[in-house]
Amino acid sequence: MSAGDRGLPLPVNTALLLIDIQQAIDDAKWSAEGPRNNPQAESNISAILAAWRHVGYPIIHVRHDSTSPDSPYRPGQWGNEFKSEARPTPGEQIIAKRTNSGFIGTGLEPMLREAGIRTLVVAGVITNNSVEATVRMAGNLSFNTYLVEDACWTFARRDYEGQLRSAQEVHAMSLANLDGEYCTILRTKEVLAAISGNRAIPA
Amino acid sequence: MSAGDRGLPLPVNTALLLIDIQQAIDDAKWSAEGPRNNPQAESNISAILAAWRHVGYPIIHVRHDSTSPDSPYRPGQWGNEFKSEARPTPGEQIIAKRTNSGFIGTGLEPMLREAGIRTLVVAGVITNNSVEATVRMAGNLSFNTYLVEDACWTFARRDYEGQLRSAQEVHAMSLANLDGEYCTILRTKEVLAAISGNRAIPA
Repeated sequence: MSAGDRGLPLPVNTALLLIDIQQAIDDAKWSAEGPRNNPQAESNISAILAAWRHVGYPIIHVRHDSTSPDSPYRPGQWGNEFKSEARPTPGEQIIAKRTNSGFIGTGLEPMLREAGIRTLVVAGVITNNSVEATVRMAGNLSFNTYLVEDACWTFARRDYEGQLRSAQEVHAMSLANLDGEYCTILRTKEVLAAISGNRAIPA
Repeated sequence: MSAGDRGLPLPVNTALLLIDIQQAIDDAKWSAEGPRNNPQAESNISAILAAWRHVGYPIIHVRHDSTSPDSPYRPGQWGNEFKSEARPTPGEQIIAKRTNSGFIGTGLEPMLREAGIRTLVVAGVITNNSVEATVRMAGNLSFNTYLVEDACWTFARRDYEGQLRSAQEVHAMSLANLDGEYCTILRTKEVLAAISGNRAIPA
């Protein structure tokens, strides 16, 4: 079913919320248990960003500024910089966070409320950690929240009993926990189809 | 390794935070895809509660007051009542919530701050929904958070790709996402061993 068929509502002022799309995510340590999924996620993110810039709707880049001395996300390092496909342009909001959720220890919630933003489209990394923590809060805070499943990715990991799960298994369990409870899951093509029907905000 | 071996710190005033342990969780609809795990969870919760009452540390019962007309958690119904093993006694705090996280739309965070509570021991249902949403926020809000894995349970469900996962698989993936990132996972016997070394607060 296409986004049009579902009547996907992306009201004027729907914000694109990008989570932790920084160079540190390419650090080899994340794939110690196996490769990531969704290798096309960055190109999907790039296409979604271009569409948002075209209509002039709000774009918010959440940046993880780790306080851990050995984290590749620590400010001042190569890893803290945004990936090329998700680099902010002047005028786009950057929200720095130090924990998993984009809503904790940041001004994100009041910023959204003051801007009258009620609807969020979320993408980024990793699905089951900062993305999931942020989406759970977004939904619980009553934002109308969409998560773009093929514009997120994660890595293989072991579950608490030691069973190795592929990145796609981890991703699919996280999405199941979120969909219909905290957000609605979409694909990039649905988001692009929906936003392409929106009118640009006059400059 | 026992709790004693790990030197588990449960400071005076460590709060026991019980999530949604209400009769509605026994509704047959939750087990439509397969049975729950941890059938001993309620007796573990009962033992933990008794230990907390013995030392006189704070006990907080989070109750889900669903606003959905067809939810067994809606107030005024049998399902909204606490299960017998987790029924509050006079003087124990009850926090009513309407969404997944115990911290959203409730006074839980300021209540904990004002009481000087920095450490939480969490149990309840279901692992991958309200428990996980609450534990993620507790950790991100800088509470020193422990989750008692065998005093929680969940149900079988399908992941986002339609793969049926047993309750134990869902539980183990949720615990892996939480452990070391948002909380420390413990077993009931570790919690009981740790709290038994604590002195009662004089009445």
